[in-house]
Amino acid sequence: MSSRLKDVAALAGVSTRTVSNVVSGSAAVAEETRARVQAALDELGYRPNVAARNLRAGRTGLIGLAIPELHSPYFGELAGLIVRAAQQRAWTVVIDQTFGDPEAERRLLDGGDGRLVDGLIISPWALGPEEVTGRSRNVPVVLLGERRPHGLADRVAADNVLAAEEATTHLLEAGHRRIAALGPQPHLHNETARQRLEGYREAFRRAGLTPDPALEQPVRTLHREDGARAMAALLDAGARPDAVFAFTDELALGALHVAHERGLRVPDDVAFVGFDDIEDGRYANPPLTTVAPDKQQIAERALQCLADRIYSPASAVPPLDVVIPHRLVVRASSTRTS
Amino acid sequence: MSSRLKDVAALAGVSTRTVSNVVSGSAAVAEETRARVQAALDELGYRPNVAARNLRAGRTGLIGLAIPELHSPYFGELAGLIVRAAQQRAWTVVIDQTFGDPEAERRLLDGGDGRLVDGLIISPWALGPEEVTGRSRNVPVVLLGERRPHGLADRVAADNVLAAEEATTHLLEAGHRRIAALGPQPHLHNETARQRLEGYREAFRRAGLTPDPALEQPVRTLHREDGARAMAALLDAGARPDAVFAFTDELALGALHVAHERGLRVPDDVAFVGFDDIEDGRYANPPLTTVAPDKQQIAERALQCLADRIYSPASAVPPLDVVIPHRLVVRASSTRTS
Repeated sequence: MSSRLKDVAALAGVSTRTVSNVVSGSAAVAEETRARVQAALDELGYRPNVAARNLRAGRTGLIGLAIPELHSPYFGELAGLIVRAAQQRAWTVVIDQTFGDPEAERRLLDGGDGRLVDGLIISPWALGPEEVTGRSRNVPVVLLGERRPHGLADRVAADNVLAAEEATTHLLEAGHRRIAALGPQPHLHNETARQRLEGYREAFRRAGLTPDPALEQPVRTLHREDGARAMAALLDAGARPDAVFAFTDELALGALHVAHERGLRVPDDVAFVGFDDIEDGRYANPPLTTVAPDKQQIAERALQCLADRIYSPASAVPPLDVVIPHRLVVRASSTRTS
Repeated sequence: MSSRLKDVAALAGVSTRTVSNVVSGSAAVAEETRARVQAALDELGYRPNVAARNLRAGRTGLIGLAIPELHSPYFGELAGLIVRAAQQRAWTVVIDQTFGDPEAERRLLDGGDGRLVDGLIISPWALGPEEVTGRSRNVPVVLLGERRPHGLADRVAADNVLAAEEATTHLLEAGHRRIAALGPQPHLHNETARQRLEGYREAFRRAGLTPDPALEQPVRTLHREDGARAMAALLDAGARPDAVFAFTDELALGALHVAHERGLRVPDDVAFVGFDDIEDGRYANPPLTTVAPDKQQIAERALQCLADRIYSPASAVPPLDVVIPHRLVVRASSTRTS
């Protein structure tokens, strides 16, 4: 077989290692290179049966991706990037939607669903970091969006505290003081929401100010309708904010919708900042200021972590805490255009 | 094994047939019932190894879903519904993104990717219906969004001609005459776009009117940026419409964005109607009038077609043409609120 790999490599004009990577999925290969290698494999009639090879190696070639829901623009976009990056490793992605159900998250983490995946990427929603990392697992797990360094599994996430602090500081520097925080979820163990709230409070602390606790408005989930409901609740309670930092763009867009309905001018009467940089926000009226985590990097780093655990399980690198860069994208929802 | 199924059925308070359906995935089972049966299976220690059972039956328990991209809100939402409905049949969904690449569509239809799926649901983008249905296939295929009755595979789609005609008639009845059509794609074989254009023209014909061909504005893909570009092109060419029928909500939202930028009032200066009923449009400013296909039904009917082909291959029912209901949802983007 190794001589055939050499033939394929020569025809494709790449190293045998690259051919091997394409066939085994053990490393990412650029799409163009991968197509060239595949064409050479096809031309020489070398058709690796990935399923059979994996089976011999005790692997299925499937990896699991567990997210709250595909319907959410953020997770839909992220899932798309992960599926695409996985293809470059000859991996097939099986997507599970947990809908924030703790039982569903436990079942997936335990591997109790009877599915044969070689690894799992999970964005936990309902379970706290202790339970997530503490559960017994049969396959390597990579966590998205959790940052507490429990050291039991690889984690890939933006620095949520810092990012939320920057978003809030941006509003403070524009002179806003009554900045609502849309998204704290005291009833859940949701770690991401906790961190963004911490960043929001930290920005006030650093500015020597104290936020009005009445402006911390909890939501049930992170959709537009929750943002709309939270904004209406604030206004109905007479706790009118002069700015809103929403923990997701969807929440921000729902709240923005209510501001328009109530005849408030944006950003003059109330400014908005969201989180996630979904495409939707770029085309909103006015376009939405947001924190943009590097989603492409989230996808690539998560898959790299998983590949290292799957293909080099014996190397026993301690669990990694991969911090993904982010940037604040300032648009018209938080800056007066005139 | 049948006595054990009886025990499980008794404990769960359902028929053995229902237990069998849960275990085999041969029919949809309500989530609540499924959970009850699963609890009974667990309590009695009956853990069907779905993977092993499928393997014996020559099946993998995996079905493929091939869509242009998860990133699109419409396909993200639809994929979410399909994944959820598939879970109720104990099926695992493998999602492929074709990104409108004809080669990717051909490879998936040919089954040449070496993957082991029991069936494939595909929303073709680049390939015309002749090629889609004419390609050799090793597994049952269900087409989404294609309607031409070639009779070679099951199809599940809304009546795009009728729906587009209704959307255009809605604008004509409000007095609009210069109605732009955003989305015709003469360079592709895209059947859905062709049908929506046909419905647009048909509405004019029925009203005894002739649309201005300069108002048919092609786009490259169906995203917000394409809609924005098309709207800008129309306005820059001096071909100002008094209404826009966009072939997707994303196109409409991009065009709406440009209308705002150019200082046009919506709907007074220009009205907008989209297609798909994505959540985004409900929260747009103003909220977007749209054609809403019943996405839940698309998911359920597509899976039912696939199940019938997979579990009753010998019954040889001729290919089905499943028409999904739709409705026009009128919102403020096409009706003056005062």
